[in-house]
Amino acid sequence: MPDFSIGVDLGGTNLRIAAISSDGQLLEKVTLGTKVALGRDHVITEMCDAIHRLTEQYRSLGAFLGVGIGIPGIIDMETGTLHKSANLPGWSEYPVRAEIEQRLGARVFLENDANVAALGEKWLGAARGVPNMAIVTLGTGIGGGIVLNGKLWHGMNGMAGEFGHVTVEPEGHPCGCGNRGCAERYASATAVVRMAREAIASGGAPTLARAAGSDPEFGAQSIYNLAIQGDEEARRIFRRFGRYLGILLAGMVNMLNLDMFVIGGGVSSAWDAFSPTMFEEIRERSLVYAATAPEDPLGKTPLGKQEGASALVEGRTPRKTIITRALLGSDAGLYGAAWLPTLSR
Amino acid sequence: MPDFSIGVDLGGTNLRIAAISSDGQLLEKVTLGTKVALGRDHVITEMCDAIHRLTEQYRSLGAFLGVGIGIPGIIDMETGTLHKSANLPGWSEYPVRAEIEQRLGARVFLENDANVAALGEKWLGAARGVPNMAIVTLGTGIGGGIVLNGKLWHGMNGMAGEFGHVTVEPEGHPCGCGNRGCAERYASATAVVRMAREAIASGGAPTLARAAGSDPEFGAQSIYNLAIQGDEEARRIFRRFGRYLGILLAGMVNMLNLDMFVIGGGVSSAWDAFSPTMFEEIRERSLVYAATAPEDPLGKTPLGKQEGASALVEGRTPRKTIITRALLGSDAGLYGAAWLPTLSR
Repeated sequence: MPDFSIGVDLGGTNLRIAAISSDGQLLEKVTLGTKVALGRDHVITEMCDAIHRLTEQYRSLGAFLGVGIGIPGIIDMETGTLHKSANLPGWSEYPVRAEIEQRLGARVFLENDANVAALGEKWLGAARGVPNMAIVTLGTGIGGGIVLNGKLWHGMNGMAGEFGHVTVEPEGHPCGCGNRGCAERYASATAVVRMAREAIASGGAPTLARAAGSDPEFGAQSIYNLAIQGDEEARRIFRRFGRYLGILLAGMVNMLNLDMFVIGGGVSSAWDAFSPTMFEEIRERSLVYAATAPEDPLGKTPLGKQEGASALVEGRTPRKTIITRALLGSDAGLYGAAWLPTLSR
Repeated sequence: MPDFSIGVDLGGTNLRIAAISSDGQLLEKVTLGTKVALGRDHVITEMCDAIHRLTEQYRSLGAFLGVGIGIPGIIDMETGTLHKSANLPGWSEYPVRAEIEQRLGARVFLENDANVAALGEKWLGAARGVPNMAIVTLGTGIGGGIVLNGKLWHGMNGMAGEFGHVTVEPEGHPCGCGNRGCAERYASATAVVRMAREAIASGGAPTLARAAGSDPEFGAQSIYNLAIQGDEEARRIFRRFGRYLGILLAGMVNMLNLDMFVIGGGVSSAWDAFSPTMFEEIRERSLVYAATAPEDPLGKTPLGKQEGASALVEGRTPRKTIITRALLGSDAGLYGAAWLPTLSR
């Protein structure tokens, strides 16, 4: 019988907890709202109750390996403390690992949320069997994780992978980080909405203006819907998105020469709208990519077949640079978190 | 008695060969012109003759560990073949390692020239004792090397570290690589001269114009000399240089969160002229740097004291991001090459 572990995706909005077997089968998933306003003790108690219930339920299956938790923010890997998290106010310098280990009497592993997404895609998704990869998660902002020789690259202080704040336009839009022209000012859900509002303000985007006026949930998803329906202004926004994401990725390919770059996060579902200009930029701007591009870089291969990408990567010279969509959607982090106890064995 | 090895720096202009003891003492250095025009066999024969003479001479000291060679170009690490080298025409797909091993009957290790410079600085220079570092070499172009957990990071095809072709200005100057706005179009000897010629052509740089007209060797060095003499146009050029180098480095710090970034290559001697704007940009553009900057980031500490930088790096939380000048000058690659046989033991 397979062993199992618990993966936790502790987001600012949802708290998701899953029991996952060591061969990657989802046993059960629990989704709770993260009641941040009720304080961190409340959140931790809810989490521990759910973990306790799941471990009791599946204990008969095999050995319980521990709990992995993906958290948005900067984690001190040595002490298991959350330094800073924009989405979890009041958790700064909180010894998350020690607290949960004490409550559960189990081994607990913390990771940044983009890092667990990278691990999830590596374990069971697009990067299965790929030794060196990075993930770029496109959401409200941009997150990033790097895997080298099969292991997460944390950098010296756990701060590696801040792809969202790499400058892609020196005199570009100001960013909350203090910089101008950060990648996430152009290639994130927030950026899509900003570009749409700018287009509306300029008076040249009547369809977008109508949608913004009538759709109370007007956002990146609705702008994408207009783009695939052929609205030229909405399409232009995603072309711009792709251009800057391409500039970011071209730099990453030139610096790191990894086997694979996986594009994940909610906005990666707009792949059709942004990937053509993304690939154009990468081809033009990365001599390393030009030397190692696969024959079908646009990823027109059906999704199911992309698992074969790992075959492209291993055992051939020169190995190819694969740039592709994430396969696990919002579950990547949950799976990656559940993989942490196994990885540390 | 210490063992020794041979380091070779095979450049397009000079061929330098040194016997270096395993504790880092230079025993003897030979500098020859690289007579590229006489063909690769001629160059290889001259190199092997010099290596042979040195090994005979120092054999009585201790065991001879082998030969390390730094070569400008892309090397297939598995086969020891030089794929491509702009500075060594006619060497494409040449099995350099096998040829030299056969002639000498010794173990031979090849590395890209920027990678051996990184190793040299790590072994005996600015990055001594630093586990994770990158070097940016500023010369005719920009070269790069990355050391992670004490080992060179080659990427999947030996193409990692192409920092010179990272985009720092999306609509910038065209580059020979096919891209626009590559870092080396702004932060290299070639770029300094181009910016000076542009300033001269605009009519607003009389001192530069005079120097260009009278100095047959007008180049980055003469422009730097004018800058330190206070010429405003020459100073502006190095400020621009520093700005774009800073944009490049800020991206590297955000992506990789390394302990140290070493600035080497001939043009790094213009440090005083470009480093103030370089640090300004990094501070503004890298949230990772802002969180980890040392108290004396401008490197105003006397050079001899900078070795102490490694003390800053180890054993403290949070560790600091050190950005500093290379210490070994043009010998970095020679030392790094000589370290290769030791590293592979």
